[in-house]
Amino acid sequence: MIRCMTIEELRQRLAEQRKQFPEGRIGLVPTMGFLHEGHASLMRRADEECDFNVLSVFVNPLQFGPNEDFDRYPRDIERDAAIAEKNGIDILFMPSVQEMYPMKPLTKVLISDVTDRLCGASRPGHFDGVGTVVSKLFNLVQPDRAYFGMKDAQQVAVIEQMVQDLNIPVQIVRCETVREADGLAMSSRNVYLNEDQRQQAVVLSRTLREAGSWLQEKGMTTQELTQRIRASIETAPLAVIDYAEVLTYPSLSVIALNQDLSQLSGNLIIALAVKFGSTRLIDNRLFELQGGDVHVQNDDEIEAAQSNSDRGEPQLCGQHHH
Amino acid sequence: MIRCMTIEELRQRLAEQRKQFPEGRIGLVPTMGFLHEGHASLMRRADEECDFNVLSVFVNPLQFGPNEDFDRYPRDIERDAAIAEKNGIDILFMPSVQEMYPMKPLTKVLISDVTDRLCGASRPGHFDGVGTVVSKLFNLVQPDRAYFGMKDAQQVAVIEQMVQDLNIPVQIVRCETVREADGLAMSSRNVYLNEDQRQQAVVLSRTLREAGSWLQEKGMTTQELTQRIRASIETAPLAVIDYAEVLTYPSLSVIALNQDLSQLSGNLIIALAVKFGSTRLIDNRLFELQGGDVHVQNDDEIEAAQSNSDRGEPQLCGQHHH
Repeated sequence: MIRCMTIEELRQRLAEQRKQFPEGRIGLVPTMGFLHEGHASLMRRADEECDFNVLSVFVNPLQFGPNEDFDRYPRDIERDAAIAEKNGIDILFMPSVQEMYPMKPLTKVLISDVTDRLCGASRPGHFDGVGTVVSKLFNLVQPDRAYFGMKDAQQVAVIEQMVQDLNIPVQIVRCETVREADGLAMSSRNVYLNEDQRQQAVVLSRTLREAGSWLQEKGMTTQELTQRIRASIETAPLAVIDYAEVLTYPSLSVIALNQDLSQLSGNLIIALAVKFGSTRLIDNRLFELQGGDVHVQNDDEIEAAQSNSDRGEPQLCGQHHH
Repeated sequence: MIRCMTIEELRQRLAEQRKQFPEGRIGLVPTMGFLHEGHASLMRRADEECDFNVLSVFVNPLQFGPNEDFDRYPRDIERDAAIAEKNGIDILFMPSVQEMYPMKPLTKVLISDVTDRLCGASRPGHFDGVGTVVSKLFNLVQPDRAYFGMKDAQQVAVIEQMVQDLNIPVQIVRCETVREADGLAMSSRNVYLNEDQRQQAVVLSRTLREAGSWLQEKGMTTQELTQRIRASIETAPLAVIDYAEVLTYPSLSVIALNQDLSQLSGNLIIALAVKFGSTRLIDNRLFELQGGDVHVQNDDEIEAAQSNSDRGEPQLCGQHHH
């Protein structure tokens, strides 16, 4: 594995690789480092599918708000390098902030609508920073495929929208969230949690699992489901809800509060952001509604949905339930 | 020459070309069609420097304001195709609006600061549309070099800024403005002019030429120069000034009104937008100030300035004149 600190070196290594293997497929796994098993699963998937893989480790200041955790975001580049090497990465690209932003950037890639809610609403400017840095990484690496975890489902939706709108020649690969044994979604931010917070944090994944059966109840409305979700999270005394929403996916449109969800077909997401102390955790689950049949998507199905439709999103429309 | 109406066909042709000639250099000349000698000069330059050249002809609705001339913008695709073929173009890419924007685009590439003045101020949203469509064309063609005329000097500055900020792997080539025999800068919009307007339109280039000697006058200030420029344009009774500004280039920063220009060094632009009837013409001239030596840049020097500095712009700073 080669480590590249500079854009020039990255470009040179990639040019050599392309010259030697013009048909070789190049994969990109963009991360902010402090890698965990979730990232490792993206790398293994890239390694299976591509001939040459780049892992980027860059904590992007542009996507952090002024009161967020940019400075204290956990970093451990030696551990990251060991994990990358073990999981088939060929180039570890770890630029400095100065290298990525040598002067004040005047250009922003802004994605609207799909950024209106969830983290887009809670973290103003966050997705402007994501769109901009991911554009840069795509231009630097020019990957054939790029791998993103569905734990950040809104990020995936935003990047898919950007890729489509700007005709970026890359295939976005949605990868399933990896979880701890008790269900907690893996996240670099989990290290912030103290013991009590860590124990209670399981409430997110448990709520999402239970919501699957609530969704199957006849006559369940958006409002009722949202209330049950909130009540379930609030059983954890340390949990402070930032958002708990039921939306379409990937367009992230609002569903009418009195909508009978059993009458819907299409992809629906339940997305949560919950604070434990100063640590904000997110999690989500996708459901495929088929006019009453509720179905939790697994990895293979996420892929199938992607290849079946441009945006992986069947038209969400009311259907009669039999 | 191959004509491509669809993105799929364009990508396929380019993939074949790249497979057959992996080392071949690909050039792009992005235009809105109704080609004239100015465009032809861009194509010839591309043909000299590149192995395979794409001309895009696309009147981009995103860069026209609601009261602008999108609908009546002149089009003549057969004439365009003949000019392209004669000037060494290999692929003429002429997509429909539906092909470029199959659904409402949610992603915009916004460039700030350098878009604050001139056409950025007169045509709100114009450069958002330019940045977005040029990003798309760069992603579709992935050219090694892209050719732009300096008649749209602000457009060149905006695109250079975008390319730098987003690490787009393309070299922007600045090409000199081509003029009619009497000095009028070539433009597709010149066909709108009636006989009287056409005769008076020469006032733009004449004023820019004279400004070169005014600049050499000792103690000439930004304010005095701007006043002389406006007075000169107003000698044409049909001319209505939209803007007439003296700025740095390419950052397009304002220079203090009482600044003694003879004391400056750096690149300066005089940029004009003048309406004749409902037809809005633009023209500009670049000057390289060296603490008193005024120098009009020609084509070779534009290139040299580009390779000498990242942004082609020496620091603009006061110097004592001897």
